[in-house]
Amino acid sequence: MKNNNKDKINPLHMKPKEFRKLVQNEEWTDITMEACQGYAQTNLAIVPKEYAYDFLLFCTRNPRPCPVLEVLDPGETCPKILAPEADIRTALPKYRIFKNGKMIDEPNNILNYWREDLVTFFLGCSRSFLWALRSANVPWTRYGAYKTEIPCNPAGIFKGPLCVSVRSFKNSFDATRAIQISSRHLLMHGPPVFIGDPGKIGIKGLGKPDSFNPYRPTVASPGKDEIMMYWGCGITPQAVAIESKIPFMITHRPAHMFVTDKLAEEFANL
Amino acid sequence: MKNNNKDKINPLHMKPKEFRKLVQNEEWTDITMEACQGYAQTNLAIVPKEYAYDFLLFCTRNPRPCPVLEVLDPGETCPKILAPEADIRTALPKYRIFKNGKMIDEPNNILNYWREDLVTFFLGCSRSFLWALRSANVPWTRYGAYKTEIPCNPAGIFKGPLCVSVRSFKNSFDATRAIQISSRHLLMHGPPVFIGDPGKIGIKGLGKPDSFNPYRPTVASPGKDEIMMYWGCGITPQAVAIESKIPFMITHRPAHMFVTDKLAEEFANL
Repeated sequence: MKNNNKDKINPLHMKPKEFRKLVQNEEWTDITMEACQGYAQTNLAIVPKEYAYDFLLFCTRNPRPCPVLEVLDPGETCPKILAPEADIRTALPKYRIFKNGKMIDEPNNILNYWREDLVTFFLGCSRSFLWALRSANVPWTRYGAYKTEIPCNPAGIFKGPLCVSVRSFKNSFDATRAIQISSRHLLMHGPPVFIGDPGKIGIKGLGKPDSFNPYRPTVASPGKDEIMMYWGCGITPQAVAIESKIPFMITHRPAHMFVTDKLAEEFANL
Repeated sequence: MKNNNKDKINPLHMKPKEFRKLVQNEEWTDITMEACQGYAQTNLAIVPKEYAYDFLLFCTRNPRPCPVLEVLDPGETCPKILAPEADIRTALPKYRIFKNGKMIDEPNNILNYWREDLVTFFLGCSRSFLWALRSANVPWTRYGAYKTEIPCNPAGIFKGPLCVSVRSFKNSFDATRAIQISSRHLLMHGPPVFIGDPGKIGIKGLGKPDSFNPYRPTVASPGKDEIMMYWGCGITPQAVAIESKIPFMITHRPAHMFVTDKLAEEFANL
């Protein structure tokens, strides 16, 4: 792995194609949260064909954590809709490999793991609606991503906890605007799934997000009067891979997403 | 088949459970367009398990004509989310049976066609957002449902033309309201897929909807200055069954929908 040049590179105003080139060359191996302002980013889940129906059904039954943007045919590596020149095997800065419910590797590309029977799912990502929050001047405090005690709706072999990304807002106006704006982005998780005390959905310590999430919170606990809101999160398939013990599955590493050629607003429903 | 009592029965203010009872007893075998005001109605598509992935993928790739509300497990006959007491084999007034791309029967129930490998898909229906248009005092003139020359995005064996339901609005205000209101109902086809001259999307005669659509238009052509709008239509899977020559598929008969226990507004995204 080459050195990460993130101190020298500022990807915020790059075009997706240019940014993905850096990623492909492993000149950018860090998180994508501030890459390519305004462009939609996606979560990734790749499963063998024999599990593709169960997984697509799982997504259909759990549209908040797993909104489906594009599904490739088996063995196909190029997302025709989202980025017609990308190769999904090298387009993300970091992946995760799951075998029988255990994470066994976090490679920078999946060329060595690729198989002709793999079906790639691109799932909407909250990074996309955060551009819209920022454009609307709605500030938030970021926490991590957490497993909850809320079970997803199962489908075939797939079952597991709903995972959420957490943000706090300093007053009712900002919280209301955040609900309105994220509701315009149904394919990017849409509105929050919960508002209130994290303990009520089984989140023990906001300062300690689940160990499989490398993206740490900026603060450990909310200020007085802050409104906590929880959105469906694209790490849900990873928690599900673990709980379902699926023989083989590839995902993105949390916060290391796929940057598409589409503006987030192209997916807005209103 | 018993006589149809539709001259004596007015189902508009019935509860869905009560209405489905009439349907189950074949005391109502007619269209459901004016049944159970405010409640969501759905289109129906049932395919053998071996085609379920391709069909779910087809729906995912074509969310305007085929928004998925619920998918049952193979052999399951009760929609737990939409109507926990219904039996899908007897809950619709008329079905259609397709074999190898040909419609071979239009029975009042599918008890004799049921198989343990069948997977049932409930797809959103524009009848649901029409309640909202009516509540908002937005009048429309109804045309039929038509095949267009716009191809759907294929998935596996499934391919075929996008079908649309057509309505005209008497002025820009009403047309704009109809776009806003239907956009709130993404799971009921959402906003129109086209606005303008029917000839531009390959609809030859508005007075002559496709022969497989028994629901005739109220008028043959729009008035001067009327605005024509076209929504994705739940008969699309029927056109697709024909074009794909799928060995076996069951659908609703057009305009003879499944009436759910859920209010249409329960599915509204805003």
